[in-house]
Amino acid sequence: MTVADIKPYVLLTGGLGYIGSHTVIKLIQRHYNVVIFDNLVNSKVETLSRIQEVLSVESPELSNDGLLFFQVDLRQLDDMKEIIEREFVGKNRRITSIIHFAGLKSVNESVKDPLLYYDYNFVSSLNLLKLVQAYQIHHFIFSSSATVYGDVTKFENPSEYLPLRENQTTKIPINPYGNTKHLVERLLEDYANSNPDFQVGILRYFNPIGAHPSHLIGEDPLNEPLNLLPIIANYSKLNKTLKVYGGDYQTKDGTCIRDYIHIEDLSRGHVLALNKLELLGPITISQQAELDMTVNYHEWNLGKGVGYSVLDIIKQWNKSTGIQVNYEIVPRRDGDVEILVADVEKSEKELGFICQFDLKDACQDLWGWTSHYFNSLKLEK
Amino acid sequence: MTVADIKPYVLLTGGLGYIGSHTVIKLIQRHYNVVIFDNLVNSKVETLSRIQEVLSVESPELSNDGLLFFQVDLRQLDDMKEIIEREFVGKNRRITSIIHFAGLKSVNESVKDPLLYYDYNFVSSLNLLKLVQAYQIHHFIFSSSATVYGDVTKFENPSEYLPLRENQTTKIPINPYGNTKHLVERLLEDYANSNPDFQVGILRYFNPIGAHPSHLIGEDPLNEPLNLLPIIANYSKLNKTLKVYGGDYQTKDGTCIRDYIHIEDLSRGHVLALNKLELLGPITISQQAELDMTVNYHEWNLGKGVGYSVLDIIKQWNKSTGIQVNYEIVPRRDGDVEILVADVEKSEKELGFICQFDLKDACQDLWGWTSHYFNSLKLEK
Repeated sequence: MTVADIKPYVLLTGGLGYIGSHTVIKLIQRHYNVVIFDNLVNSKVETLSRIQEVLSVESPELSNDGLLFFQVDLRQLDDMKEIIEREFVGKNRRITSIIHFAGLKSVNESVKDPLLYYDYNFVSSLNLLKLVQAYQIHHFIFSSSATVYGDVTKFENPSEYLPLRENQTTKIPINPYGNTKHLVERLLEDYANSNPDFQVGILRYFNPIGAHPSHLIGEDPLNEPLNLLPIIANYSKLNKTLKVYGGDYQTKDGTCIRDYIHIEDLSRGHVLALNKLELLGPITISQQAELDMTVNYHEWNLGKGVGYSVLDIIKQWNKSTGIQVNYEIVPRRDGDVEILVADVEKSEKELGFICQFDLKDACQDLWGWTSHYFNSLKLEK
Repeated sequence: MTVADIKPYVLLTGGLGYIGSHTVIKLIQRHYNVVIFDNLVNSKVETLSRIQEVLSVESPELSNDGLLFFQVDLRQLDDMKEIIEREFVGKNRRITSIIHFAGLKSVNESVKDPLLYYDYNFVSSLNLLKLVQAYQIHHFIFSSSATVYGDVTKFENPSEYLPLRENQTTKIPINPYGNTKHLVERLLEDYANSNPDFQVGILRYFNPIGAHPSHLIGEDPLNEPLNLLPIIANYSKLNKTLKVYGGDYQTKDGTCIRDYIHIEDLSRGHVLALNKLELLGPITISQQAELDMTVNYHEWNLGKGVGYSVLDIIKQWNKSTGIQVNYEIVPRRDGDVEILVADVEKSEKELGFICQFDLKDACQDLWGWTSHYFNSLKLEK
């Protein structure tokens, strides 16, 4: 058997989640083999058939044998090892890269039950690095968040920090969810410094929105949607009144400002980041000697670089879909940061990452997916 | 059975280590019941008999039934639960407080094998909080380190940050060991915010030195000593030449400056902190309503508030013990910070913590213990 007989795979944890599933499609379309580890605590196995459906419509020429799925909890290292021994080592397959999407993501829940968040978000990441070490996996991409930048509007001279740059030195996340993301970044940085044959990319997401342009797949959490646009879409269908948390922020209209990025752009960012890490490869002795901490550890913002207020989004939703959603302004919520907007210069320069979709596309695609989804629910009944 | 029949215990993790063992003695002398969990990776079971020996000499009136020891690895939650179910719940004993000393502490080793450090130092702490939650344990003291303050001499206006104060906002530890300590602090803070019936004290140690004034117990690591004074003491016995790492720091004599604290003062600080947490008790609804983050989460420096250079220490060693140790200055070592000196105002004010021993006492006690130790080794041969 030669090296060429061994089939390389990218492991996507949480690959049936919102961002994971869209990235699976992109990777398969770029001829990567993909294996998904997902414990289905906040995703559904139906998403796997939706991925297959999109692929059969958009890329009928591709065979389906490059996609594997295992239901496994990342906190159980032995369970993951058992799968890898049986399905990879035992079958001439090899995991060469990990894209680590899996994790809990509710700020409110993290405030109430921090141990749950440290367990899920931190212990899982540590276990994945044990796999990296045990199976010589070379590339690692981590789903981080703009939350790690903390609330810079509380700093002296906030304008110095905006838009948010990757190299901001003081990062004080204001909730346990943000802390777990920040801590995993430190873990990955420390590990990268110890292993020259490893490349890690931290992707700091701003606000992912929209759905696949085919409208056959989109966000589908097990629980109530937590983010603004999915709530708007749901409430538009259900005719409920949207709560806008806080109308007294120091922004143009008093509501929080976020940087919204279309899921198609965001998932493409992962492919670009993986390509970059593959190109960089192992770091050399001379690079090590320079002690350049960034040689194999990289941080990239994935945002559009434009800030919209909550009221902007409500207006754009109406304009793009023709649907008027009712809203009321209620008091602020714990854990919300006033403004989060990305500086996108570094991702553009290093990854060639430029957003191709805008807010209008995102609203229309989300509405297309929501309508498709509600129709399919009716059909099921 | 009434509540009064249930015997309260303080759980000391790593209770056979250097700081742990000295604190066990203090707690028993203050009539606390103590249970030690230690996996003996960097401590020896003989320390238990040394503790008994000091107690029988200094406090012969005390019975020995208030001290329990179990060899257990804190990374194994189920093993700890099994001991608690069998030895506590089943025997009318109850753990009311935890003092968490256990952890790996070599900066160099942490740079080479960060996963080991995150595993030992973080996962263990998370497991202990799961015990806190399962068994309603109310007080928790964590052995943190001055390392969490990072290298403030690299900041703009370093003098603003010195001496180091507990509320320094920007904390960027410069090695994985420091990151794991900082990470556990965040975990404990997040957990304290979620549980009003819990009080946590973070003790940030500066440089613990010396030995018990009886000279019957002191530091006794399994591996080579890593800290300056134990190395000086060993090399004085073995007639070896001491390496001083870095003579070109921006300090009065070019060598690093540290804040040295006698082990007797440091271990007394733990008793004071525990008393404080016991007095504070559960936080009330009105305190919660104020959202004062510091109501049940506290950070205290344990240092003397005085900085000595490496060369100062060598001179003081000679002066206190009459022993001249040879040294040579070699290049700097990775991960060393130029200056670490505590601001002790907060510990003094809130805990009544004032150091009673000085550098001379520490040198003499360390030399007394080292001589006792080398003699006992000879006797064994």
